[in-house]
Amino acid sequence: RINGDRLWDSLMDMAKIGPGIAGGNNRQTLTDADKQGRDLFKSWCDAAGLSMGVDKMGTMFATRPGTDPDALPVYVGSHLDTQPTGGKYDGVLGVLGALEVVRTMNDLGIRTKHPIVVTNWANEEGARFAPAMLASGVFAGVHDLDYAYGRKDPEGKTYGDELKRIGWLGDEEVGARKMHAYFEYHIEQGPILEAEEKQIGVVTHCQGLWWLEFTLTGREAHTGSTPMAMRVNAGLAMSRILEMVQDVAMSEQPGAVGGVGQVFFSPNSRNVLPGKVVFTVDIRSPDQEKLDRMRAKIEAEAPKICEALGVGCAVEAVGHFDPITFDPELVASVRDAAERLGYSHMNVISGAGHDACWAAKVAPATMIFCPCVGGLSHNEAEEISKEWAAAGADVLFHAVLETAEI
Amino acid sequence: RINGDRLWDSLMDMAKIGPGIAGGNNRQTLTDADKQGRDLFKSWCDAAGLSMGVDKMGTMFATRPGTDPDALPVYVGSHLDTQPTGGKYDGVLGVLGALEVVRTMNDLGIRTKHPIVVTNWANEEGARFAPAMLASGVFAGVHDLDYAYGRKDPEGKTYGDELKRIGWLGDEEVGARKMHAYFEYHIEQGPILEAEEKQIGVVTHCQGLWWLEFTLTGREAHTGSTPMAMRVNAGLAMSRILEMVQDVAMSEQPGAVGGVGQVFFSPNSRNVLPGKVVFTVDIRSPDQEKLDRMRAKIEAEAPKICEALGVGCAVEAVGHFDPITFDPELVASVRDAAERLGYSHMNVISGAGHDACWAAKVAPATMIFCPCVGGLSHNEAEEISKEWAAAGADVLFHAVLETAEI
Ligand SMILES: NC(=O)NCCC(=O)O
Ligand SMILES: NC(=O)NCCC(=O)O
Repeated sequence: RINGDRLWDSLMDMAKIGPGIAGGNNRQTLTDADKQGRDLFKSWCDAAGLSMGVDKMGTMFATRPGTDPDALPVYVGSHLDTQPTGGKYDGVLGVLGALEVVRTMNDLGIRTKHPIVVTNWANEEGARFAPAMLASGVFAGVHDLDYAYGRKDPEGKTYGDELKRIGWLGDEEVGARKMHAYFEYHIEQGPILEAEEKQIGVVTHCQGLWWLEFTLTGREAHTGSTPMAMRVNAGLAMSRILEMVQDVAMSEQPGAVGGVGQVFFSPNSRNVLPGKVVFTVDIRSPDQEKLDRMRAKIEAEAPKICEALGVGCAVEAVGHFDPITFDPELVASVRDAAERLGYSHMNVISGAGHDACWAAKVAPATMIFCPCVGGLSHNEAEEISKEWAAAGADVLFHAVLETAEI
Repeated sequence: RINGDRLWDSLMDMAKIGPGIAGGNNRQTLTDADKQGRDLFKSWCDAAGLSMGVDKMGTMFATRPGTDPDALPVYVGSHLDTQPTGGKYDGVLGVLGALEVVRTMNDLGIRTKHPIVVTNWANEEGARFAPAMLASGVFAGVHDLDYAYGRKDPEGKTYGDELKRIGWLGDEEVGARKMHAYFEYHIEQGPILEAEEKQIGVVTHCQGLWWLEFTLTGREAHTGSTPMAMRVNAGLAMSRILEMVQDVAMSEQPGAVGGVGQVFFSPNSRNVLPGKVVFTVDIRSPDQEKLDRMRAKIEAEAPKICEALGVGCAVEAVGHFDPITFDPELVASVRDAAERLGYSHMNVISGAGHDACWAAKVAPATMIFCPCVGGLSHNEAEEISKEWAAAGADVLFHAVLETAEI
């Protein structure tokens, strides 16, 4: 078994970097806090005897050598970046859980045939730079490097410039590494494991996603002196689209979600009807047909809503992945490990996207979930127990050991 | 008659300060650009032989002495601050029109019994610091000075600190000045004069306003992994309130407007359901009963909308004035001046709020409107013609002359 206290202490140490405003973290991608988090993680990897490689997207690969020079490595990781008001565990548990796995191997003097690579993928959250899972997407060949470098934060700073600025631009070609397998340990970010009182989620699938960025063009005008009939009200169109997205998601229940997290009014002044409203619709389903149907409905309805108000409507897809099925053998190895260790478990579908989804394009991949309190994530109040954290890491340890072969 | 070319040149010179992004201006209250605009205006006042007083709110009073030491001054002015994406004329025309009136008096060697005070009220727009017409509101005793100093911009900077920072904190007690009369010349900011082909709007009333700032509290949660039934979606509640405000305004047609110009999602991340949404509803009517009824309906309906979604709902009134009736004698003097000068004119009700509304609480007050293209204002594309500008300034000149007495 892994050392649950050491894992927890590392989680708490990392949480000191980029503190949030309500007990969580703001360690967004390629910020100074991200740099500090990376530096701390590197110091831990150094202490554990791992050798660090960094690719041109800034993803960190910390290798523990294997005994067979020809064996491909088993990759184990997640991400250290957070939402602007993120929790202490989302992503971090998977990176530090992987580190705990190799620390435990070191303690026990275990050598594996395949090397183990503890991985910190860059820009998983997609909060500062859309889309999410950007570096693993480039790794899997889904995005071009140039596309990724050109992604902009709300201030207009690019991924490429910011990566250079924080000093974590590596020299490895992105995606040049070949994987024997990929494991990712994560908090569930949903309510099911806690409700079902299970310690381990055996993740069989991940639902697919579309991020649809709408740019609505109205006419900037005075809120007081512009008669109702003369308004070209982009804010009202946005409201109607939000309601329509809700209806579309509800019409596909169960197994579908839809919502809006980000809205920008321009010029965003109390007495100016917005000339421009930009917002992003997030729709997901594990069912490809539902996902496609939701997108089609939204893209058909939104222009009608806008047209009725005289508002211009443009849509751009700024994030997408299809539903993923994880590797059956690795899934079985996770389930077996949970059984062996005596942890209660159940199959689950991931509601959130993960780097494992892109890794699954280029290697056998799977995930392990632990419960989180109230299913809450992307909230500074995100919480797990030390015991939950340790149980999942134990399962990770065993599944990785089996796959990496002693 | 005034010098239309000189007035226009001054308008264009002022428009060079705080240029916008689309031909208009961004010279928001107490910014560096506001300071520069004030400095330029002061240099013009100095050149015209006016003496400058500044009060503790930063309002500028440039006095041309009268011949009777006991006669109270006639105040003539408006504001030089703009919206973030404002036009070149909103407010500026009234200040520089007033300056043109005294420049013309200087040219013609006219002395008046009452002093003339060219006035630049601080923070009329309310874009950076709510409410609008803040300095004239303190002047009229509607707001406390401390309340005004504590008003915050979206970055949390206070009015008091920013006023000191730009060096325009004056020493005069706010409201200590007594007025014989107050005139304000402004663009209509609405479509009626242009549609009716009238050169002059004789402003008899101003509609009343409420700014209702809503703070909706949802639960920050992951947009992907949070099932629809578990969402506490403050963004959806906001959408429904926007639609409801639209319905309420439409149910009070004609003679009522309602809309939302400013919305803040928090944390405003694509994959986080907002934990907090703050937005401001702007409702107006010249009819006190309609205005009160709209407010009552909105304040009754919004909590129901929120309750149905489990969303917390708090409302704060951050701006308010009742419908205003301007001084009948001054209104008649404006109408007579337009007649005398041969300008077409009609009675109008101001759709926008103006410093004249607060001045009307402490002195006889009225306004003069000139048309603006397409009724467009609070838009960088705001436009008027040199002839329109000059005609209104002519009427202002005559009405002021009559009231200030030769
Ligand atoms: N796990 C996670 O929160 N990933 C961010 C991408 C997403 O929105 O699903
Ligand atoms: N005239 C003008 O635009 N004033 C700003 C205050 C308001 O919104 O009416």
